[in-house]
Amino acid sequence: MITKQSVIGIVGLGVLGGSYAQALCSAGYESIIGFDIDSEALQYALEKGWIQEGTGDPERASECDLLIFCLYPGVFVKWIREHRNSLKHGVLITDVTGVKRAVLNQIEEELPENAEFIACHPMAGRESKGIRFADAGRFQNANFIIVPTDKNTPEAIETMRQLAQDMGFRRIACLSAEEHDRMISFLSQLTHVIAVSLMNANDNTNLAEYTGDSFRDLTRIARINEDMWPELFVLNKDFLIQDIDDFIREMESFREMIQNGDTDGMKQKMILSTERRKMFDGEGTK
Amino acid sequence: MITKQSVIGIVGLGVLGGSYAQALCSAGYESIIGFDIDSEALQYALEKGWIQEGTGDPERASECDLLIFCLYPGVFVKWIREHRNSLKHGVLITDVTGVKRAVLNQIEEELPENAEFIACHPMAGRESKGIRFADAGRFQNANFIIVPTDKNTPEAIETMRQLAQDMGFRRIACLSAEEHDRMISFLSQLTHVIAVSLMNANDNTNLAEYTGDSFRDLTRIARINEDMWPELFVLNKDFLIQDIDDFIREMESFREMIQNGDTDGMKQKMILSTERRKMFDGEGTK
Repeated sequence: MITKQSVIGIVGLGVLGGSYAQALCSAGYESIIGFDIDSEALQYALEKGWIQEGTGDPERASECDLLIFCLYPGVFVKWIREHRNSLKHGVLITDVTGVKRAVLNQIEEELPENAEFIACHPMAGRESKGIRFADAGRFQNANFIIVPTDKNTPEAIETMRQLAQDMGFRRIACLSAEEHDRMISFLSQLTHVIAVSLMNANDNTNLAEYTGDSFRDLTRIARINEDMWPELFVLNKDFLIQDIDDFIREMESFREMIQNGDTDGMKQKMILSTERRKMFDGEGTK
Repeated sequence: MITKQSVIGIVGLGVLGGSYAQALCSAGYESIIGFDIDSEALQYALEKGWIQEGTGDPERASECDLLIFCLYPGVFVKWIREHRNSLKHGVLITDVTGVKRAVLNQIEEELPENAEFIACHPMAGRESKGIRFADAGRFQNANFIIVPTDKNTPEAIETMRQLAQDMGFRRIACLSAEEHDRMISFLSQLTHVIAVSLMNANDNTNLAEYTGDSFRDLTRIARINEDMWPELFVLNKDFLIQDIDDFIREMESFREMIQNGDTDGMKQKMILSTERRKMFDGEGTK
């Protein structure tokens, strides 16, 4: 079991790793080691008092009871492959990756017997990169998803639930990897593809001065971390492509109604979208 | 010239007509007549002190120096057709309609010689219907577009500029009907079609509890006034269908990159969308 005195390693002190360090430190965890190849990130976390030690040496992972990987998926898998023999016996490993089936498959293949991997997704993403944008306050309005498999122990699940609670997450839920990836495809990945495509469809920057709330809201996430998202899209492409196709089909059906002047058909679609959207505001009934 | 003492008629006391009445009243216009077939709306505006008189009788328009039509486009054109002989000699007529080419064509056909129509679009829409949602405060963050034609006098343009300024609009600009309709197609109509289609593509209301900011932002405008938008879409369908097609083409191109695992291609698209989006936040350079 992980306690406030356990040695916790956070691998990758970017915006999310930094926020984890800050949140765990605030919650009273006393022994946090930050791992990063960027010495400035380590220095920043040390100065803030978020970590007790910072190192660029992966072998130091052997001291850790819990390892939290805050890396892009490919780098995470590569790290485990290269340093699997440096892990402490009985170590608990978790992550923050935005897709789960692919990562679980690959990590479970690489992981030694004496380690347990419990996949997690703190849904508190932001587009800014780097520890200087770390802000544990964002966790307070966010969901924390635990993605257990049949290989996980109840203790590991309970540990992550406790950790998420200590970090201040609003709501903690368990989903299967497939449920998680389906949900993320629709709620997060599809919306990012839409925002980027809307921004790129035409050079309309000359219209910036006329923009109202609706365009701004729809394209806010078109400012996007281009180093992370393409990899996540490819790792979830079966669900994402299905969602893109469904969406394009719906757009085309609406387009035909406009073309044919079918105002009644459009009206029905708008009544449906209004009803459904109310559910997301906590109103309306199924 | 319209002064604070001129008789101003506001035809249609819905959310926008009510906001006009409130804003003009606050700005010191002393003689405002509200026209509506809904006596409750008239009563509400009278109680608020936003209008001096309320009537359901269109013939009373003959008293007005300025008539502001806050009706859906088809109803507006029908009103002018039926009551063109009740207009005061030299009356100035304006509107709030969200599309301009079609309305200008139809109104200019119906209008008698002794009246001048100056088309305007206060870009302060909201989804809620009815005078109870009127709120002139929303004008303060909004654009006011004047759409003059070669039939308009400089006095009419100046009058509307003054009126918009008095109502507190942030920025007042002149555009041609074509420029206006092109801009509205991309910034407003396309975004509404996207939001409605995203909401309707699948029944994902079961995911409501996992929703983060991005999905909420993208679908906020999927709660939509189904009585107004279909008519506006059809009246602007040439531009809107072109924008929908460009957007779908861009989505399909992105889809192919996901399918092919082309992370470099996606990265380039994201760099472009980030750059462009910065312009809308007042950052970046062309």
